[in-house]
Amino acid sequence: MIIGQPCAHGMGEFTPTDYSKVKRIPARASYDEKTVHDIIDSTLYCNVGFVQSGRPFVIPCTHGRDENTIFLHGSAVSRMLKEAGSGREMCLSFTNVDAIVLSRSQFHTSLNYRSVTVFGKGRIVDDEVEKGHAFQTIFENICPGRWDSARRANKKEMALTTVVAIEIDTAVAKIRDEGSSDEEEDLAGRWWAGILPIETKILSAQPSPDLSDDIPTPAHVTDIVGRVL
Amino acid sequence: MIIGQPCAHGMGEFTPTDYSKVKRIPARASYDEKTVHDIIDSTLYCNVGFVQSGRPFVIPCTHGRDENTIFLHGSAVSRMLKEAGSGREMCLSFTNVDAIVLSRSQFHTSLNYRSVTVFGKGRIVDDEVEKGHAFQTIFENICPGRWDSARRANKKEMALTTVVAIEIDTAVAKIRDEGSSDEEEDLAGRWWAGILPIETKILSAQPSPDLSDDIPTPAHVTDIVGRVL
Repeated sequence: MIIGQPCAHGMGEFTPTDYSKVKRIPARASYDEKTVHDIIDSTLYCNVGFVQSGRPFVIPCTHGRDENTIFLHGSAVSRMLKEAGSGREMCLSFTNVDAIVLSRSQFHTSLNYRSVTVFGKGRIVDDEVEKGHAFQTIFENICPGRWDSARRANKKEMALTTVVAIEIDTAVAKIRDEGSSDEEEDLAGRWWAGILPIETKILSAQPSPDLSDDIPTPAHVTDIVGRVL
Repeated sequence: MIIGQPCAHGMGEFTPTDYSKVKRIPARASYDEKTVHDIIDSTLYCNVGFVQSGRPFVIPCTHGRDENTIFLHGSAVSRMLKEAGSGREMCLSFTNVDAIVLSRSQFHTSLNYRSVTVFGKGRIVDDEVEKGHAFQTIFENICPGRWDSARRANKKEMALTTVVAIEIDTAVAKIRDEGSSDEEEDLAGRWWAGILPIETKILSAQPSPDLSDDIPTPAHVTDIVGRVL
């Protein structure tokens, strides 16, 4: 079962392109900018697709978003970031799975999910101010408030880190949020049908063993405990 | 932060290739077959990367595994499955995130995770017996025991479904399972450090509203409630 399929943007809507338009069950697709942004922001990481020497690569990576720009960062030696920064086409996939859907027929077995596919070209962020801003969006996506509550990167660390910005050319959200879907003739059968909700949750905050006892767990940390992704 | 990077296999170990060898923090990489298999089997879906007209695509998709073969299935009209079945190179990414790691410095902020990257070529599964077996591995990955407890696909449904097998040419697991990592000179600072465990869990089984009251929730369903991915 294929979970999502991959829009150029306009008035709050991305415009589907030949390579991004959802053909399979188009009712589940949305090109609405806010829907796309909300799903991107609800995920802790994305899967970054790129081509190198004709070969596809998919690498999971944390991210940040500002309007229609996605920021990625990582080691300056990273294959992915070198490729991403070279201006070539990229594809980013963001997914949350919300339930297993068991229909009476195996054919209609499914998952409930919220997914987004983004297409765009990457560029290296060299400008110091933009690089700082990119870091901030990435840290704030992982833990809002952390930006002002951890040691900022120094010059050496900044130099060791490559930041890539990907402007969204086109994007699509695909959402399934339904119960089991069955053929009329299967309803009288004795097969069980229903959904099994799945939750991804931040459980607790465990201080580092080397943390001084007199440093309490700050609000920006306790605030995200219990957060459901 | 790049979560995982992508082995030709031999005696229980995949052999790293130029495009799969982990360069960044190689101590976190494993080419061990069992480690790779366990992570693949712990995930409900993977992200499938392929190239079409020079452009990268990444599509989330449920999967099944038998030894070093990964099965995918979906609509016969799927762009991804057509491309996957054509024998071209594919890249599959499997990821579970286990914790947010907040170090004292932003530079060492990280996630704990278990990820696998697989490289291999796809082929369409036409043989009826193998196609049935592929279905079984996919359904059993979603819900063990479901294969014998739901209506099997009929001829029409089988014809509407394309199955692709990807033999693993090479694969790598990458795992981070540690606390915060800090520079010596940061330890005396007043910044909080620690980890925030994340759990992805199957919460409950909710029968379909149209399910007859006299059909109890079967063991193969109740057995996976509480499962942590």
